[in-house]
Amino acid sequence: MSNPYAVLLNKVRENKPLVHHITNYVTVNDCANITLAIGASPVMAEAIGEAADIAAIAGAVVLNMGTLNERTIPSMIAAGKAANAKGIPVVFDPVGAGASNLRNDTAASIISAVKLSVIRGNISEIKFVAGLSSQTKGVDASDSDIAGAGSAGLTAQALARKLGCVVVISGAVDTISDGAKIVYVENGHPMLGNLTGTGCMCSSLIGSFCAAAPDEPFAAAIAAMLCMGIAGELAYENSGQRGNGSFRIALHDAISRMDAATLEKMARYHEE
Amino acid sequence: MSNPYAVLLNKVRENKPLVHHITNYVTVNDCANITLAIGASPVMAEAIGEAADIAAIAGAVVLNMGTLNERTIPSMIAAGKAANAKGIPVVFDPVGAGASNLRNDTAASIISAVKLSVIRGNISEIKFVAGLSSQTKGVDASDSDIAGAGSAGLTAQALARKLGCVVVISGAVDTISDGAKIVYVENGHPMLGNLTGTGCMCSSLIGSFCAAAPDEPFAAAIAAMLCMGIAGELAYENSGQRGNGSFRIALHDAISRMDAATLEKMARYHEE
Amino acid sequence: MSNPYAVLLNKVRENKPLVHHITNYVTVNDCANITLAIGASPVMAEAIGEAADIAAIAGAVVLNMGTLNERTIPSMIAAGKAANAKGIPVVFDPVGAGASNLRNDTAASIISAVKLSVIRGNISEIKFVAGLSSQTKGVDASDSDIAGAGSAGLTAQALARKLGCVVVISGAVDTISDGAKIVYVENGHPMLGNLTGTGCMCSSLIGSFCAAAPDEPFAAAIAAMLCMGIAGELAYENSGQRGNGSFRIALHDAISRMDAATLEKMARYHEE
Repeated sequence: MSNPYAVLLNKVRENKPLVHHITNYVTVNDCANITLAIGASPVMAEAIGEAADIAAIAGAVVLNMGTLNERTIPSMIAAGKAANAKGIPVVFDPVGAGASNLRNDTAASIISAVKLSVIRGNISEIKFVAGLSSQTKGVDASDSDIAGAGSAGLTAQALARKLGCVVVISGAVDTISDGAKIVYVENGHPMLGNLTGTGCMCSSLIGSFCAAAPDEPFAAAIAAMLCMGIAGELAYENSGQRGNGSFRIALHDAISRMDAATLEKMARYHEE
Repeated sequence: MSNPYAVLLNKVRENKPLVHHITNYVTVNDCANITLAIGASPVMAEAIGEAADIAAIAGAVVLNMGTLNERTIPSMIAAGKAANAKGIPVVFDPVGAGASNLRNDTAASIISAVKLSVIRGNISEIKFVAGLSSQTKGVDASDSDIAGAGSAGLTAQALARKLGCVVVISGAVDTISDGAKIVYVENGHPMLGNLTGTGCMCSSLIGSFCAAAPDEPFAAAIAAMLCMGIAGELAYENSGQRGNGSFRIALHDAISRMDAATLEKMARYHEE
Repeated sequence: MSNPYAVLLNKVRENKPLVHHITNYVTVNDCANITLAIGASPVMAEAIGEAADIAAIAGAVVLNMGTLNERTIPSMIAAGKAANAKGIPVVFDPVGAGASNLRNDTAASIISAVKLSVIRGNISEIKFVAGLSSQTKGVDASDSDIAGAGSAGLTAQALARKLGCVVVISGAVDTISDGAKIVYVENGHPMLGNLTGTGCMCSSLIGSFCAAAPDEPFAAAIAAMLCMGIAGELAYENSGQRGNGSFRIALHDAISRMDAATLEKMARYHEE
C-alpha cells in the first residue's frame, strides 16, 4: 500500500482510540456515530467536574463551539489544557466564529489557552480566526468568502504558521496546511452542504485520525478529509439522489465501510 | 403558477434565509436538517451571551420549549425581544404547555414579553395557551382533546384574535387561523405521529417560510403545513411502510425534493 | 400465546405509557424515537423546576448519566424520589460509571437516594456499580471485562440481591437477574456495538415495558432485551449489511414493526 493515508485508516481501525468531544447538541449524535463508523470510540463529557479527567485518558480531544454556553466554555479550556499536559492532540472547530461576540471571544480564549494540533472550519470561520476580514452568516460560510476562496491556501498556511498547528478549510475543495506545505483534497459532493453536521463530523474524523497518529496531525487531517470526501461521493452514488435523508444514511454507511483499498483508489488530492 | 404557497416555497429556496432556533435537544438535529432541506439556513444559539445578537441577524426566530432549563428561558425572551425590535418574525412552539407549572409559566412569560408572528402546537398545547381547560399528557395531545378537536377552528381563531398572531393547531387535519380566516390543511399521514419531532420540524418550516415572507405569516404557516403534510404522504409511499426509521428518512428526502409543482399538484386544503 | 414477553409487548402497545427520561444529549433522539417505536410515549424534562412533576405523571422514569452536568444530577434525584413516592418504576443507566469521579459519585448518589427497579449497563459499568474492580474505557466496556464476562451471571445476581432490583448486563449475550433467577438473552447482532445509543435505547425499552407492567420489572427487562436483540437480527438481515447508517434505520424499523408473533418465534433465551 503506497498511500500513507490508507495506512492511517488501518491504524484507526486497529487501535480504536478514545476520542473525547466537548461539542454542540445539534450534531453530537452524528459526531458519535461517525467516530464509531471510522473505527474509533467516542466519549462526550462536558461537565467541568470531569472534562479534564476524561481528556487525560483520551487519544484525542475535539472542541467544537457549535452551541456554546456558560458551562461548557471553561470545560473546553480545562479539557484542552489537560490534553496538552499529556501531549494528547486537540482539534478545534470554531463553529460560527465571527457571528457573535461570544463566539469570537471564546475562539480567542481557546486559541490563547490551549495548544492546538488542528483547527478546522469553513472559509468564513478560518478567516475570522486568522484575523482577516470576514462575514460569517450564522454557521455557514458567506457567499463572498466562498467566492474569494482562491486564497484559501495562503490563509490556511499563514494561520498554520501563526499558531504552529495544522489548519483545515473545508469547502468544495478542502485546503490543508501545516504552515509549510498546502494540500488540496478534491473529493467531495455538493450534497454534503445540504446536511447539518458534515463539518462537525470532519472534525470528529480528524480527531480519530490524530488519536491514531498523534505525531502526524497533517497526515491525519488529510486522511480525514479524504475519507469524508470519498464517502460523500459514494453516498450520492449509492442512494443519495433520493434526497437529504438518504444521502445522510448513505454517508454513514460509506464511512463505516471505508477501507484502505477504497481510499487508495478514490483519493484525489494535490500538493501546492 | 396559481398556488400562492408554491410561490413562497420558491422564495425560501431562492433567499436561503437564516433561521435562528432556541429549541430542545431531543429534536434539534431534525430541526436543523429540515430547515436545510426546505432551503433555509439553520443556526442554534441559546447562550444568553449571544441569543439576542444572533436573533438580530436572522430572518426568523423559532422558540421551542421542548426541553426547558433555567438558562434557556431568559435566552428565549432575549432573542424574542431582539427580533421584535427589528421586525423579525418570531414563531413559538409551546411544547408540553399544560404538563408542568414550569412550562405553563414559561409559555405565559414568552407570550407576554414577546410579540409573536405564529404559535404552533397540538390541540392540547394550544387549548392550554388559549386558557381553555385541557389535559396535556406529556408532550403529546391527550385523547380527549383529540376527540373534541372539531372545535379546533374556533379555538385557533379565538387565540389568534386574542394575541394578534397566526395560530396553527397540528393534527390529522391542521387548523390555521389569522383571527379572521380559518384554513384546514388535509395533507398528512398517520405515521407522522409515530416520530418524535414532527411538530418541532413544522415549527422550523414555519420559521423558514416566515423568514422568506415576513409580511405574510398566515400564508407562510399554511405553506409550511402543506409541505410537511405532502412530505408525509410521499414518505409513506416511497419507503415509509418499512417502519418508523425508513419513514423518517423518506420524510427528510421528500422535504428536500419538494418543489412548487409537487406542492401545487398535491396540496389539499380548504377555507372556512 | 405462551410467551409471557409477547404478552407484555402487547400491553405496551395497548397502554402507550408515558416514559419520562432524564438522559444524555448524544442519544436522546434515538431514545425518544425507540420509545415511540415500541408503542410508548416519551417525555424528556430535565429542569429542576419540573423534573419531579413530570416524573409523578409518568408510567416509568429512565435516568441515564451519559452526559452529566451540574444541573441534571439534582434533577435525576428529584425525579427518582418523586417516582418512588408514587410507586412508579425507575430504570437507571450508569453510563460510563468507573470512567471519572463525577460519574462514580453520581452513580453512588443515585443508588443511595433512589429505589431502583432496574439497572442496565455494560459489564464494566455494572462491575463498577457492584463495587468490583473494573476498568471502564470511556463509555464502552473494556476488553478485559468483556473477556471475563463469563461471570456476568454471578455479578448481576449479586448486585440484584444487594440493591433489591433487577440488573441487566448488556453484551453479546445479555444477562438479567432479579437476585434469584438469571436469564440469558441470546438474540442480538454484533452491529449493535457499532452504533452509539444502543445501550441507552435498551434502557428506554426497559422503561417502556416497566411502565406497562410495573409489578414485573424482571419480565419487563427480559422482554425489552429480547426486542432489541431480535430487532438487531432483523435489521442486519433487512438492510444492515449496507453499513452503520442503514443498520440504524433498519433497527428503528424493526422495533416499530415488532409484534407478539415475531417475538414469540424469534426469541432465544435460557434460564440458569
